[in-house]
Amino acid sequence: MRVVSKIDEVRSIIEDAKKNNLLIGFVPTMGFLHKGHLSLVAESKKHTQFQVMSIFVNKIQFNNMNDYNTYPRDLENDFDLAEKNGVDLIFLPDDDEMYGNHLTTVHLDRLTDNLCGACRPGHFDGVFTVVSKLFNIIQPHVAVFGQKDIQQAVSIQKMVYDLNFPVKIIMGPIIREDSGLAMSSRNKHLSREKREDALVIYKGLKRAEQLLLNGERDSKIIINEIEKIILKGRPDKIDYISAVRFSDLSFLDTIGEKAVIAVAAFFGDTRLIDNMVIEYERGRIKCVF
Amino acid sequence: MRVVSKIDEVRSIIEDAKKNNLLIGFVPTMGFLHKGHLSLVAESKKHTQFQVMSIFVNKIQFNNMNDYNTYPRDLENDFDLAEKNGVDLIFLPDDDEMYGNHLTTVHLDRLTDNLCGACRPGHFDGVFTVVSKLFNIIQPHVAVFGQKDIQQAVSIQKMVYDLNFPVKIIMGPIIREDSGLAMSSRNKHLSREKREDALVIYKGLKRAEQLLLNGERDSKIIINEIEKIILKGRPDKIDYISAVRFSDLSFLDTIGEKAVIAVAAFFGDTRLIDNMVIEYERGRIKCVF
Repeated sequence: MRVVSKIDEVRSIIEDAKKNNLLIGFVPTMGFLHKGHLSLVAESKKHTQFQVMSIFVNKIQFNNMNDYNTYPRDLENDFDLAEKNGVDLIFLPDDDEMYGNHLTTVHLDRLTDNLCGACRPGHFDGVFTVVSKLFNIIQPHVAVFGQKDIQQAVSIQKMVYDLNFPVKIIMGPIIREDSGLAMSSRNKHLSREKREDALVIYKGLKRAEQLLLNGERDSKIIINEIEKIILKGRPDKIDYISAVRFSDLSFLDTIGEKAVIAVAAFFGDTRLIDNMVIEYERGRIKCVF
Repeated sequence: MRVVSKIDEVRSIIEDAKKNNLLIGFVPTMGFLHKGHLSLVAESKKHTQFQVMSIFVNKIQFNNMNDYNTYPRDLENDFDLAEKNGVDLIFLPDDDEMYGNHLTTVHLDRLTDNLCGACRPGHFDGVFTVVSKLFNIIQPHVAVFGQKDIQQAVSIQKMVYDLNFPVKIIMGPIIREDSGLAMSSRNKHLSREKREDALVIYKGLKRAEQLLLNGERDSKIIINEIEKIILKGRPDKIDYISAVRFSDLSFLDTIGEKAVIAVAAFFGDTRLIDNMVIEYERGRIKCVF
């Protein structure tokens, strides 16, 4: 596994891999890797033969500088995990390599109006901008994004379609701890007690699944039930509990098509997000956690 | 020469050309070709072996729908000129192929604040967005933009740098009629009288060159002189006469570095732009028209 910090180096290594007819897979990360990231690499390996991972804590997507400054970092462990999981190349640029006197922004309307887009002003512009840069630097055939950041995954798919990036986007599943807590680098910030409290998010989503399987389709009723359960964990703030269309992330009063129920809540200073995708298999509802 | 309208077709043809180790040159146009466009193709041929031209009147870069609706079109003549000048592939998409339910915008700060950016709200977002799409569709090695649209050429260079597009940008010269009038598709709209009147733009720039060669460096004095000459042509409106830095297109009080003097003015309903670049050769000023 190679680790490089310069754009020109990345390009030259990937050019060589392409000359050897290898398909390039790409997993962008902000480091502090956990099983969620590694599952994305595993997914990428199903489709491609040369695995690139970027590790870059992208300042411009943080709307909260405290969140940026305390974002967990452990490069040594990241390199170890990446190598053991078949990553061929890590791109580890610094701020200057990525944003020397940067003036360009990529923006997406509508799909970023709700959910995290509403709570984190500027966040998605930062995401689209860095992902556009990384796609142009790495020029992968396939890039994998996790379902946990569902608004990111869906809206990047749309950006790629709109701007015609020659990259296939795949969404990887949410990886959970045994307790049900969705894995996240930010979980490191949770005290033992808050980590216990935060399980109400998953429990709330599981309750929503039960309601859906019992025939409930009214978003308001389902959301109220989730809220009741989440409040039991005494969250410091609930950013949203929302039911939205999968296609364009617009709000949904009645669940009757492919949909997402998504939650964001603070436990202590730590903002956690989670969701489930509601699909239909032979007419029957199926919730994908 | 082939003419195709579908993105998939373009990609497959260019993939084949790349497999044959041809470098891909690209000249984006809105059609109604004149010698200016053809000079960009000639420039592209110096660097590459397979010439792609897009012809697409990009609605989202027009801030004035009358300008869009009356933009001159003559595809038959375009195909004829393109073929005779060595274009290998014309990409001729329709609106739907380019913008089905489009939500993504590419935006550049600062470099678009002055000149045409100030007069044509939304124009450059439309330009950056379509150029990003075309770069991703065509994936050229080299793309050529004309000096006539200097703000476009300079700011696309910056967008390419910021977003790391793997494309080399070259700026081609302004091509002029014998009278000095800069060639433009919109010149077709000029009556014989207005076309005569409009020569004051070039005359104004030539006067500025004279002042500079005589040692004048004060932008205000030079601009006033240009304005006096342009007013003799009874323009219907002067959008701007500005001296800006070449590097970032910010206003310049004293000409003392690489700079641009740019003009936009209406003659009748037709908005004309022109400019000269001020360079230094062994310490001596040189104006490039």
